[in-house]
Amino acid sequence: MVFDFNAYLAEKTKRIDAELDAILKSTRKPDRLLEAMTYSLMAGGKRFRSVLCVAAAESVGGDLASVLPAACALEMIHTYSLIHDDLPAMDDDDMRRGQPTCHIAFDEATAILAGDALLTLAFQTLSSIETANEQQAAKWLRVIQLVSHAAGYCGMIQGQMLDMDSEGSQLTLDALKTMHRLKTGALIEVSLRCGAELAGANLNQIQMLKSYARQIGLAFQVTDDILNVEGDPAIMGKAAGTDTLRQKSTYPSLLGLAKSKTYARELIENALQALESFDQKAEPLRAIATYIVERRK
Amino acid sequence: MVFDFNAYLAEKTKRIDAELDAILKSTRKPDRLLEAMTYSLMAGGKRFRSVLCVAAAESVGGDLASVLPAACALEMIHTYSLIHDDLPAMDDDDMRRGQPTCHIAFDEATAILAGDALLTLAFQTLSSIETANEQQAAKWLRVIQLVSHAAGYCGMIQGQMLDMDSEGSQLTLDALKTMHRLKTGALIEVSLRCGAELAGANLNQIQMLKSYARQIGLAFQVTDDILNVEGDPAIMGKAAGTDTLRQKSTYPSLLGLAKSKTYARELIENALQALESFDQKAEPLRAIATYIVERRK
Repeated sequence: MVFDFNAYLAEKTKRIDAELDAILKSTRKPDRLLEAMTYSLMAGGKRFRSVLCVAAAESVGGDLASVLPAACALEMIHTYSLIHDDLPAMDDDDMRRGQPTCHIAFDEATAILAGDALLTLAFQTLSSIETANEQQAAKWLRVIQLVSHAAGYCGMIQGQMLDMDSEGSQLTLDALKTMHRLKTGALIEVSLRCGAELAGANLNQIQMLKSYARQIGLAFQVTDDILNVEGDPAIMGKAAGTDTLRQKSTYPSLLGLAKSKTYARELIENALQALESFDQKAEPLRAIATYIVERRK
Repeated sequence: MVFDFNAYLAEKTKRIDAELDAILKSTRKPDRLLEAMTYSLMAGGKRFRSVLCVAAAESVGGDLASVLPAACALEMIHTYSLIHDDLPAMDDDDMRRGQPTCHIAFDEATAILAGDALLTLAFQTLSSIETANEQQAAKWLRVIQLVSHAAGYCGMIQGQMLDMDSEGSQLTLDALKTMHRLKTGALIEVSLRCGAELAGANLNQIQMLKSYARQIGLAFQVTDDILNVEGDPAIMGKAAGTDTLRQKSTYPSLLGLAKSKTYARELIENALQALESFDQKAEPLRAIATYIVERRK
């Protein structure tokens, strides 16, 4: 039987979305701040990071339920980073996921606070388990270590800083890779890592999943750059051609479009190779790798 | 022997500052982002929250070393909130702790990211203990629960949102208290709570410390408002009279200056009463309460 990736994705994102919705609604009566958080978090993102977390857990015998707080926290952190990156002082973007960005739909101050609140809520979610089970507590504390490191000033935030600093200047291919490894790669890698560790993966499995993560993380970024050149804004929900306008160094600008596509496909082949010792439980991870280079948004 | 509060404060802040400095320097080579984080975190803050955390631990028989990660994390969260509150889209302040605010000294994007990074680093610090000790892990996970709740959209961030929404409109005294209970009270309360829980306080002690926290948190804010009217900018390191300019509702504007001072003193008396069942180990907490209404900055 062929693995039905679309059905898989639909089922997982449905359960993740339901949980995110429940978390947002569980706390207190709505106000403008909660409205802004909900607006951005529930804006129909691809749920790429949370699905990776779930698929990594499944690949070593775990299930969605046992990693759900991590999956939700990763989406909160990803969304907060988008809200802040879109701010006028940062990338100054007006559209995101087919709708006005948070600071356009609300205002700048609310967008800053909504981002702060989603980042904080991520750690609240990661620490929300019953601490009476001390073995579980140790596991989740370890997840918080990993996630905070990946999302912080030695990971994602450093990457965004490098990205901003590099606007208007020509980067080498190595510098571009370093920037992406931090800006998007770190959170993608930790998404898989959390799923794997929570599901009790062994060291060899974690090593292989790390290799898979690095390859697809880079492939994801290369494809993003390609879509920015030739993607359809109506499908993507955001403008195309913005990288060229901003004189950003991208894979197409450094390698050309054809070579960028070849590079993305090579990365995906390497990612699939890293999964060779995994059985059919890793089918979702294999399908995600293929999806990354074939996606239109 | 009379308890020497100044010597106590100097010793504790020295150790906390040394640890903060060590954390910032431990990770990677400096760049503009780390520079901005260091600039704001090491700008000579009062270390009020971290000292409260330590003093609460000591009041029930604990010590500084065992709560140091929490003390540091609380200062990181407080500093991040100041950096973001000072941004042009928020309170638009140019001076803080006697030096230009982060976005003035660096730029707006760097200030946003430095704030994000300090918030994330707080959770990295709280989760940095050796997870092999599962009992310890459960304790720290509990601290992360408490801190993320207090700092998040049901606590400090909600308070900042209420504060911004209320500018230019007259608040009732009750609404003003609610706003402050969230904006500054929640983090002050959780500072004491963390110290107490990490030091193994019993439920009754936690209850009393909570009461103490509520009273001094409010007293702190009332005094802040009073200082904004009659404080010396040279001593405070920031401008005075800004609340009136912004038409902010404050205790002096609602109660008058004399009644505000009486109110602050009453709050401190209640705080001291809450500590009645504590022995001489609570002397630092008693001295802090008195300091709050007598401080000049």
